[in-house]
Amino acid sequence: MEISRFPVPELAALPEDLRSRILAVQEKAGFVPNVFLVLAHRPDEARAFFAYHDALMEKEGGLGKAEREMIVVATSAANQCLYCVVAHGAILRIRAKDPAMSEQIATDYRKANITSRQRAMLDFAMKVSRAGHEVDEADFHALRSHGFSDEDAWDIGAIAALFALSNRMAHLTRMQPNAEFYALGREAKR
Amino acid sequence: MEISRFPVPELAALPEDLRSRILAVQEKAGFVPNVFLVLAHRPDEARAFFAYHDALMEKEGGLGKAEREMIVVATSAANQCLYCVVAHGAILRIRAKDPAMSEQIATDYRKANITSRQRAMLDFAMKVSRAGHEVDEADFHALRSHGFSDEDAWDIGAIAALFALSNRMAHLTRMQPNAEFYALGREAKR
Amino acid sequence: MEISRFPVPELAALPEDLRSRILAVQEKAGFVPNVFLVLAHRPDEARAFFAYHDALMEKEGGLGKAEREMIVVATSAANQCLYCVVAHGAILRIRAKDPAMSEQIATDYRKANITSRQRAMLDFAMKVSRAGHEVDEADFHALRSHGFSDEDAWDIGAIAALFALSNRMAHLTRMQPNAEFYALGREAKR
Amino acid sequence: MEISRFPVPELAALPEDLRSRILAVQEKAGFVPNVFLVLAHRPDEARAFFAYHDALMEKEGGLGKAEREMIVVATSAANQCLYCVVAHGAILRIRAKDPAMSEQIATDYRKANITSRQRAMLDFAMKVSRAGHEVDEADFHALRSHGFSDEDAWDIGAIAALFALSNRMAHLTRMQPNAEFYALGREAKR
Amino acid sequence: MEISRFPVPELAALPEDLRSRILAVQEKAGFVPNVFLVLAHRPDEARAFFAYHDALMEKEGGLGKAEREMIVVATSAANQCLYCVVAHGAILRIRAKDPAMSEQIATDYRKANITSRQRAMLDFAMKVSRAGHEVDEADFHALRSHGFSDEDAWDIGAIAALFALSNRMAHLTRMQPNAEFYALGREAKR
Amino acid sequence: MEISRFPVPELAALPEDLRSRILAVQEKAGFVPNVFLVLAHRPDEARAFFAYHDALMEKEGGLGKAEREMIVVATSAANQCLYCVVAHGAILRIRAKDPAMSEQIATDYRKANITSRQRAMLDFAMKVSRAGHEVDEADFHALRSHGFSDEDAWDIGAIAALFALSNRMAHLTRMQPNAEFYALGREAKR
Repeated sequence: MEISRFPVPELAALPEDLRSRILAVQEKAGFVPNVFLVLAHRPDEARAFFAYHDALMEKEGGLGKAEREMIVVATSAANQCLYCVVAHGAILRIRAKDPAMSEQIATDYRKANITSRQRAMLDFAMKVSRAGHEVDEADFHALRSHGFSDEDAWDIGAIAALFALSNRMAHLTRMQPNAEFYALGREAKR
Repeated sequence: MEISRFPVPELAALPEDLRSRILAVQEKAGFVPNVFLVLAHRPDEARAFFAYHDALMEKEGGLGKAEREMIVVATSAANQCLYCVVAHGAILRIRAKDPAMSEQIATDYRKANITSRQRAMLDFAMKVSRAGHEVDEADFHALRSHGFSDEDAWDIGAIAALFALSNRMAHLTRMQPNAEFYALGREAKR
Repeated sequence: MEISRFPVPELAALPEDLRSRILAVQEKAGFVPNVFLVLAHRPDEARAFFAYHDALMEKEGGLGKAEREMIVVATSAANQCLYCVVAHGAILRIRAKDPAMSEQIATDYRKANITSRQRAMLDFAMKVSRAGHEVDEADFHALRSHGFSDEDAWDIGAIAALFALSNRMAHLTRMQPNAEFYALGREAKR
Repeated sequence: MEISRFPVPELAALPEDLRSRILAVQEKAGFVPNVFLVLAHRPDEARAFFAYHDALMEKEGGLGKAEREMIVVATSAANQCLYCVVAHGAILRIRAKDPAMSEQIATDYRKANITSRQRAMLDFAMKVSRAGHEVDEADFHALRSHGFSDEDAWDIGAIAALFALSNRMAHLTRMQPNAEFYALGREAKR
Repeated sequence: MEISRFPVPELAALPEDLRSRILAVQEKAGFVPNVFLVLAHRPDEARAFFAYHDALMEKEGGLGKAEREMIVVATSAANQCLYCVVAHGAILRIRAKDPAMSEQIATDYRKANITSRQRAMLDFAMKVSRAGHEVDEADFHALRSHGFSDEDAWDIGAIAALFALSNRMAHLTRMQPNAEFYALGREAKR
Repeated sequence: MEISRFPVPELAALPEDLRSRILAVQEKAGFVPNVFLVLAHRPDEARAFFAYHDALMEKEGGLGKAEREMIVVATSAANQCLYCVVAHGAILRIRAKDPAMSEQIATDYRKANITSRQRAMLDFAMKVSRAGHEVDEADFHALRSHGFSDEDAWDIGAIAALFALSNRMAHLTRMQPNAEFYALGREAKR
């Protein structure tokens, strides 16, 4: 199965900055996640996307790294985005050290083995993703009652917003996840 | 996490026929899938459910066993049923000998690595599950054009219908999947 | 109009147990409800369906028999199931001794002439039927506040779940109600 | 049960023209349909409503009188309007001389015992009622292919539009149908 | 672009009462709004429509004239009705003396520069328009808590109901707004 | 009314690159569009957003600049995003030299005064925005039949995807459009 409906560039043909970035990921992960190659068909858009991604997913802040992946998996599942559920599901399993977490969050986060604070975080993220026009003060209050700051609220909402974009790019390009992702993080906790 | 909102019977306290059935499953699978214990709270309903299940899932017919599990996983994911997606996802991976199949079918079967015949099968199953009142002759024609008989159509639709029930029982009881299911069938094909 | 898209067995050709059951119904009702003949095309599935039906609809418990029919009519109307609305609407009129009840429940149960307890029962049933994944503790509390036990909650939810199956089988088979049902229970109360 | 959330005028207190009209209906029908009393709380609006109603429902044209009632019942059922389904269901049974017609059209017009021309008529009416913004030339072509003129198309769409108003007024006022309607037209054809 | 899918009558060919009415509007507005010509294709329906319109939009009462236009614009935007959003948006800008009001109400009234009382008014109107069957006592209480009488509630709901009709007639006829409307009321407040 | 729920930075306090960019916009437009100030609360995210925006909206390609704004307005209206509809509506009116275009596209693009090619473009954009998981080969074929290349398809889909993000950020921050936007481009064509 093709990894994209659109032409996929050769690594060697990419601009130097994108190639370096991709090689660094490859060294760390052991493979090149398809999203890098698929989006690199448009280098300027790819640079903007990865800059946006890092600004939200790699920064310090009130949300744990596993929690950010929960947001990605829950909203991407609601959007039926195969690439994001599979790739970020793998990262979630690894960061949460829990092989069951990805399927729980993707299928029905209301029944997942998470804290009530995380449940509130996902309720907010899902509202931004699915009915953003209805977000109002009461939603911010609900987050604050679980100890989230308003900056955390921005993070939660902005991650949901970024993957609203990402999910649609995956659908547009018919992006396929790498086979490697399916196997990552499946070993049980001890 | 509790496996049910409702009382869960002790195996020893169950009627003989249900206990035997459950012990047989345990011997084969190595554990007792929670659905047996959760539904056994109501023995008469449990007997009817398992009889219905076997009549559709264990019979001979035009649908392969992996294909029947595809129907369960696709429609259960649309209904956000954690138990059925996780348990039948495991069975699907094993029967399809494909560790990627369950997440593909659960997240977006339109992008799964399946045949066009299987795609037509899932389109029909999803229509029965989500908008049954709109099923009409054109849907049967579409199945026939992929080589399905009308008896196959009954099988597809009836499996979707049975899991419409099953998904709702899982939501009603807040049924949790066994931890074992998450790990099954994850080894890559060779 | 055919009563099913699929072949309908002759009564004489049916297995003895199904034939006996159907003859008993015919003796009591004066006619054979089409659901028996349509589903008997698959004897094993038919046996399981009727066993499930009786386990929920004929048992003792906190729900009255008319109330169980209310659940069937309300959820089947939401699913646009002609057979179930017409057949169970007739039974509801008879059991409730109220010729107006079936249309009220089928069209808009919020405006029906029922108790607030029955309204709560139908709100719960509709949530299980339409958005089961959102059922949570608050819904059980609402039932308890109207005097329902948790076993009653199981009954309400399980009836909604069974007719989620039944409605889809009726759509799959294009099942038509018997003409007799339309006229039953139309005489006014005195 | 009150027939309206709002004050209901005494017949004697109504303006002469409305009172005469209502007495004429009473003489013909044997009772005063509640819609007349409920809407007469606002005489000017009531006059406009009944003028609109008669302009569409009593005029000559390509649609039979039973067919117009089919449009009312199908769209009102989709809007869950108890008053309109019960009152116009009764008129439909009488005009169609068919005691089964009202429940068939209200529950699932796709499975009703109607002609393919009437099916096309109801498809058009439902689209105007439910997704009017999507009505386009293809919908008019479909009507023409069943022998409807464009003036008939106006009639179909305008009846659906008028009952979009009527259904909402019934919900606003919590209008209850007269008990008499439930019993009308239930006798079987011979 | 044609202003209607249907024949549009010559002003001279119209019945005297409709022609007089239209000439009066023309004198006041400087042009003939297309709705008059498009609906006049059916004089009896047109008379009823304009009588209904005036009974609700021109009467005295607790709602200001700009507020009534807010209801029209909010519900018509939800129904994607180009004619009503453009024509009544213009009237709203003029009556509210606010060039920004129409786009705010049409796009997302929750973020418009209106009072909390007006917000409650629009919440009620939208519920009548979009989910009238769910209107209940709690909705009337919400209005009363903002100082609306029950007669005001009727006005709000009835305007929403009338434009449910009007929007569908505009879709049916593919009614186009006059070019003049787009420019009206755009000058900023001082 | 505040322009954001979150703190809005002083221009003087911004990093040099963002300040320069904003000053350049101000010089060209005569005012600082609020989106720059609202998003600059998070400089890294703001940089990524504007880079993404320029990569899609300022590039050469098969889509005209007015056409790109049509995509923004149509999808933002479907998401009920006040900021994007008002700000990009203004740009659309200017680029299309048509004061009526923004309201037509925002309210119901199916009835707008656009070419059939533009209609196909908006159908594709709306599908990516509202039901991206259903985008398939048939949608690309439809674009090609109107002369769009696959690179154009990427542009259309990517703009819809970017504003899926943008609309959600506007909802999250309760972003308000500048008063200036409402008045721009309202003068009629000659």
